[in-house]
Amino acid sequence: MLFRGIDMLDEHFVWQKNVHVGVHGDRIAYIGKELPTGDFGEIYDGSAKLLLPGFFNSHAHTPMVLMRGYGENLALHDWLTTRIFPFEAGLTANDVYYATLLGYAESLRYGIVSTTDMYYFCDEMARAAIETGVKANIGRGVTSFTDEDLYQSIAFRETKELYENYHESGDGRIKIDISLHAEYTSTPRAVRQLADYARKIDGRMHVHLSETKIEHEECKTRHQKTPAAYFADLGLFDVPTTAAHCVWVEDDDIAILKDKGVTVASNPISNLKLASGICPVHALRAAGVPVALGTDSVASNNSLNFIEEIKAFALLAKQREADPTVVTPVQALQAATRSGALAQGRSDSGLLKTGYRADLAVLDLSGPQLHPVYDMATHVVYSASGSDICLTMVDGKILYRDGLFPTIDMERVRFETAGSAARLSAGASS
Amino acid sequence: MLFRGIDMLDEHFVWQKNVHVGVHGDRIAYIGKELPTGDFGEIYDGSAKLLLPGFFNSHAHTPMVLMRGYGENLALHDWLTTRIFPFEAGLTANDVYYATLLGYAESLRYGIVSTTDMYYFCDEMARAAIETGVKANIGRGVTSFTDEDLYQSIAFRETKELYENYHESGDGRIKIDISLHAEYTSTPRAVRQLADYARKIDGRMHVHLSETKIEHEECKTRHQKTPAAYFADLGLFDVPTTAAHCVWVEDDDIAILKDKGVTVASNPISNLKLASGICPVHALRAAGVPVALGTDSVASNNSLNFIEEIKAFALLAKQREADPTVVTPVQALQAATRSGALAQGRSDSGLLKTGYRADLAVLDLSGPQLHPVYDMATHVVYSASGSDICLTMVDGKILYRDGLFPTIDMERVRFETAGSAARLSAGASS
Repeated sequence: MLFRGIDMLDEHFVWQKNVHVGVHGDRIAYIGKELPTGDFGEIYDGSAKLLLPGFFNSHAHTPMVLMRGYGENLALHDWLTTRIFPFEAGLTANDVYYATLLGYAESLRYGIVSTTDMYYFCDEMARAAIETGVKANIGRGVTSFTDEDLYQSIAFRETKELYENYHESGDGRIKIDISLHAEYTSTPRAVRQLADYARKIDGRMHVHLSETKIEHEECKTRHQKTPAAYFADLGLFDVPTTAAHCVWVEDDDIAILKDKGVTVASNPISNLKLASGICPVHALRAAGVPVALGTDSVASNNSLNFIEEIKAFALLAKQREADPTVVTPVQALQAATRSGALAQGRSDSGLLKTGYRADLAVLDLSGPQLHPVYDMATHVVYSASGSDICLTMVDGKILYRDGLFPTIDMERVRFETAGSAARLSAGASS
Repeated sequence: MLFRGIDMLDEHFVWQKNVHVGVHGDRIAYIGKELPTGDFGEIYDGSAKLLLPGFFNSHAHTPMVLMRGYGENLALHDWLTTRIFPFEAGLTANDVYYATLLGYAESLRYGIVSTTDMYYFCDEMARAAIETGVKANIGRGVTSFTDEDLYQSIAFRETKELYENYHESGDGRIKIDISLHAEYTSTPRAVRQLADYARKIDGRMHVHLSETKIEHEECKTRHQKTPAAYFADLGLFDVPTTAAHCVWVEDDDIAILKDKGVTVASNPISNLKLASGICPVHALRAAGVPVALGTDSVASNNSLNFIEEIKAFALLAKQREADPTVVTPVQALQAATRSGALAQGRSDSGLLKTGYRADLAVLDLSGPQLHPVYDMATHVVYSASGSDICLTMVDGKILYRDGLFPTIDMERVRFETAGSAARLSAGASS
């Protein structure tokens, strides 16, 4: 495809007007002011459009779209025990497969090209990702409540099988992460064993860290250490790690994250909705910790509208620091794109740059909400609606365009997920 | 128009499925399960659509759309003195007229049927509102820095002329409010004189109140009273009043607002963006103070996406109280609709109810982001995108539908506002 005469955010997120961008195979093959020679296939009229890198959702539980709006106005414990856990108890592989497709459709509709996910029935998720064409870092959330040998557990065996069957599948679009659910759902022995395995296979780690104050404080009581120190001591951060939330990390924790090269996946909207707090993204960034952006599950968001998430990310940093100058639009966009790509181990993605993967989104600039314009990065972060995305491309293939999803049978997905929702909510309530 | 077979949020914001809603003239004439007899004109197919009351933006400065993204990442004082004030110094009547039209277009696109505005060149704003068909409560923001007789000032004379020329014009759609800018931009004499005038004409008052901590604290130093107590003592709240922001109000202030029947217009996104803080909407509501919702100016938002504002309103209450159970979706929707209508003196609007004004919006339910559904009010607040609004009607007239604005010449508006933006930003920088 040749995007002809289109505006774009370049690799520094600077607004470039009226350029031509050629995609060849799965790569961005040309960016320039002169019309390129050669055949790029379809010519896309770039008038009143903006090309930007696609978004990387760095922390999600995609199949939980089935629980969108199902458990509302509840305290976290009640939400989990009276709504989420009973609902999840009935989930089947088929439920997860179609729910994942629904979540990918919504993701693509909002410009998300890749998602770091933690859930179960992960082979169904991998299958959905392969078929749809999206990128996904998928991990089976490991928990271990007794001091059993983790390597004998179902959760570990599923992790290992998943890794062996799906890592780097789908032309490398699918990566399998090693996922520890959290400190409060595992034993030190299990953490160490999972860390050992991750090191052995040279894998990537994904974990929930200091999401709520109570979780953070209880860990300190239990282990006389913060969750970050506890994990670091057990070797969990010895491989590239994404730590989700980090709302309650302390100064020493920030130093540990920096030292270990851990990427923080901040989930501002979910943290607000569950009243968990506001992540110190400015302090993390200032200390040199890479900060990426996630939606968390739709059950606590209740949306995958990524531009909304980017805006919340920038705004809440200002609130937390009581300083309107912190986290610029460009920094917020970096968190949403390049930082997420790097956290997923996708070093040739997350920027509009010649030779990089053609993972991109097109924003429609024609609405009154984007006029007049002084700075385009500011517009994307603060003025655009998530729905202004009109095309999403992954590895050079169009997966969303003008309301349509060429690789997803939406009618089937709607039917199946409506059935799952009805059955599971009835079962959970009974 | 007859909305046939449409879902709706009824007067209690309860989801009613597959009803028929007939509009006759400027009123909702029929709501029911049976197809009504009689000719309602066009039949609108309600499949996969939701009818909801249109939104009431309770605090805005609409012409500031011209400054969308113009002054970014600055502390409040720098933002005002280096960007906003120099830009505004060059504004002409023509600039304000077209900027207002642009702001109304964006408002309508996001389901806003009526806006409470404070600005200047207000006759141009009234003209734009009359021509467009929207509802507007417009006030000339009065300031007074010397101890002059307010009645001799330009600001007061413009207020009085505006009131005499435009109040209840446009078939009652236009109301002129009496607007005091703020405590820190006026003298006690001016406040008292404006309050006396408002009482005399039986008017409505609109004022900024305790937006920033510094403004709140400086007032206490200056007058040995909080802004709320100061205004109450000078009689400013003796007429129905909308007080914008109220981020820093104290317990005694909340009692005053309750006692005087003042409506608080909360502006959550602007308050975050300028790092002003989070309004205590839960405490206000619990005390019985009516709370409505505003966007503030686009220069500090930078959007009129009202569903985004509603979501921020609900989420930030949870954050402030560290309690996910406060401010339900229905309460957030009430703030966005009925509370705003009542604050504007429009007692027959803000709800879908037979006999009420046909001020309404239609939401497209067909996207993956709104599937599955357990509770529709929850979906509107947390899962819908502002752009899912596909039709906005005011007093029975369609003012927005599927990307088009039948009463606004968008090409002209774009041309004129682009010209204003270029001229004013060049002038302000020089």
